[in-house]
Amino acid sequence: MLEMGQAARAASRELARAGTELKNQALNAMAAAIRQQQSRILSANAADVAAAKKGASDAAFVDRLTLTPKLVEQMAAGVEQVAALADPVGALSERVKRPTGIEVAKMRVPIGVIGIIYESRPNVTADAAALCVKAGNACILRGGSEALESNRAIAACIREGLTKAGLPAAAVQLVGTTDRAAVGELITMREYVDIIVPRGGKELIERLSRESRIPMIKHLDGVCHVYIDAAADPEMAVRIADNAKTQRYGTCNTMETLLVAEPMAGKVLPRIGEIYKAKGVEMRADDAARKLLPGAKPAAEKDYYTEWLAPVVCVRVVRDLDEAIEHIGKYGSQHTDAIVTNDRARAERFLREVDSSSVMWNASTRFADGYEYGLGAEIGISTDKLHARGPVGLEGLTTQKYVVLGHGEIRT
Amino acid sequence: MLEMGQAARAASRELARAGTELKNQALNAMAAAIRQQQSRILSANAADVAAAKKGASDAAFVDRLTLTPKLVEQMAAGVEQVAALADPVGALSERVKRPTGIEVAKMRVPIGVIGIIYESRPNVTADAAALCVKAGNACILRGGSEALESNRAIAACIREGLTKAGLPAAAVQLVGTTDRAAVGELITMREYVDIIVPRGGKELIERLSRESRIPMIKHLDGVCHVYIDAAADPEMAVRIADNAKTQRYGTCNTMETLLVAEPMAGKVLPRIGEIYKAKGVEMRADDAARKLLPGAKPAAEKDYYTEWLAPVVCVRVVRDLDEAIEHIGKYGSQHTDAIVTNDRARAERFLREVDSSSVMWNASTRFADGYEYGLGAEIGISTDKLHARGPVGLEGLTTQKYVVLGHGEIRT
Repeated sequence: MLEMGQAARAASRELARAGTELKNQALNAMAAAIRQQQSRILSANAADVAAAKKGASDAAFVDRLTLTPKLVEQMAAGVEQVAALADPVGALSERVKRPTGIEVAKMRVPIGVIGIIYESRPNVTADAAALCVKAGNACILRGGSEALESNRAIAACIREGLTKAGLPAAAVQLVGTTDRAAVGELITMREYVDIIVPRGGKELIERLSRESRIPMIKHLDGVCHVYIDAAADPEMAVRIADNAKTQRYGTCNTMETLLVAEPMAGKVLPRIGEIYKAKGVEMRADDAARKLLPGAKPAAEKDYYTEWLAPVVCVRVVRDLDEAIEHIGKYGSQHTDAIVTNDRARAERFLREVDSSSVMWNASTRFADGYEYGLGAEIGISTDKLHARGPVGLEGLTTQKYVVLGHGEIRT
Repeated sequence: MLEMGQAARAASRELARAGTELKNQALNAMAAAIRQQQSRILSANAADVAAAKKGASDAAFVDRLTLTPKLVEQMAAGVEQVAALADPVGALSERVKRPTGIEVAKMRVPIGVIGIIYESRPNVTADAAALCVKAGNACILRGGSEALESNRAIAACIREGLTKAGLPAAAVQLVGTTDRAAVGELITMREYVDIIVPRGGKELIERLSRESRIPMIKHLDGVCHVYIDAAADPEMAVRIADNAKTQRYGTCNTMETLLVAEPMAGKVLPRIGEIYKAKGVEMRADDAARKLLPGAKPAAEKDYYTEWLAPVVCVRVVRDLDEAIEHIGKYGSQHTDAIVTNDRARAERFLREVDSSSVMWNASTRFADGYEYGLGAEIGISTDKLHARGPVGLEGLTTQKYVVLGHGEIRT
């Protein structure tokens, strides 16, 4: 691991110097290699899948691990999409002339070396490598051990692309062992790794975050809320409450708890309850909401803390905006929360006071996503507050330094 | 400490809600209280100073600890200056309309609770509290134990200011014990503290950074360089080499090592050497430079890694820009580095490729400072890459969240 770290650091210096065109050449060559070596990737993947099935992994796990010709093509196209994104590196901003004569600005620059730890999803190998390279960073990838053969085949294509463009192959390195100790080293090599991006389940991320000595862009859970205010448009409220819960159940930006202001409860809850019932969504509600939601079970305190990732929803009637904000502050995970209201003052209070990575007014929480926000691609959604918060795209993989342009000025 | 943490978290919510005017009222009331209670602050400080002298602290330490009527007035004026700064909280930026109809923007918001650990310099108590409050954060202050009585007297004024403006006194709390265990708790209370700002010597900061479980904005050493390029204006080069080293010796942005391109060495080093000699600056130089610098000692490898904070300088002749960038990458601390040249292409390479928090072209490294950059005030200079890099002002004490403004949009 130490050698990988050293090689990554050296490669990161070359990547930081590389211009946009060179990086795009490498990315397009990677995509071409992925297409060309489709059958090699698929047969490596078939070996991984066979071993996983023998190892009695569950169906959802095998599903995430399995590649198809269509998925390999999507992987290649995804790398090309990253090549098409604007290069954030080198941009100057906030340029000011100071009374001393110097000009001060901020320049966007790569972070350096990024360690990415992820589960057995081979497409992440290509996605993550492409984003890191485009942002001018070297990366060390540590995928789930069950996907090792697939990842090796994909990493070979990535190296081919880098080499063809004249960039160092060590700019993207795959940890070639399934040894857990390698992860322990990766997250403590402060000299060689600048940031860790963990992708995976909450337990993995909590463990890494306890042990890591390197800053992380991490995504813990998404306990998301929609608050229907007394001044909401009932039609819109029903539409958003439906979409935020039922458009997809397994995503982090799906609503967990619907909060409804007392005066609005009678107007919207019966209709929302019918929709949930028809779609097979289990409702866990407080006493006031249960009166309006036939079939709802009583909600337990711990339900309000739970990220469902399933067709389950909590429903609670609150007195007003203050009680809604209080509920979200107590039970939420600072991921994504929305208010439905036509009252601008209350909306502004909600947007300002709810301390989450995305706060929304009259929109479904399902929009919390790098593509929907226009970032082009995302390496993840950060629930941390520092450096990057919310969906993290290319810009989140860069940092800014100060640039001072002088004409011989000295300080007096 | 746990109770302080809980109180700080609750207070941070109120601070985040507070408008600019209310925060400024509190700051101005703090300044008034500091002025009014000058004699109480000075007598508390006199007790601290007497104890420190008895405890055989060195003169520089006692000097930093000692307050005078003038320094108390500066403290009050500093708090008023922070009140006069623009409030970063609430600003929307990067607003875009997406094809789905939603508008996405970033909103600047407070970080939450900030823990500040600093040495026995009582003025930091007022400075740090003022910056945190203005940025809408609660803070927990842990000053050096030798300044405890002074800090208590200042903290009482701060509380008075907060209370007068109707803000919670717990928005600024001073750790009232000199117990070391309190620091250990402060840097691990992840639930209640969002960020730690350590101010002090390198050893303290390295220790805290090993033990902290909370992200830090930290400032390690400043091993700063000036590179005089072959295409430099010799007059300007001499002026900047002089200023960067001799304008103040004890500051982090003072130059440690002067690098000179071979073709320029004969033109500038003899004059620079005379200036350093006249000012009593000890020179440690490589063989090529020593030929041009009468009286210079040979530089040892470890000298190039050293932050002098004293009238000592290393001088080295390098072949060209590449060797200069290599030297800075190897021996520097990513703090502040400058190039002197009239060649735009080389300057741009230096600015882009030198991976330091401040990179400068034709200006003295001594400009690396929050006031010089126009931040109005600074809580420190970050040598970290993430979140805040370089001088950290009010903006560095805030973060950004995504705001989505919709009209009832749902995701399809």
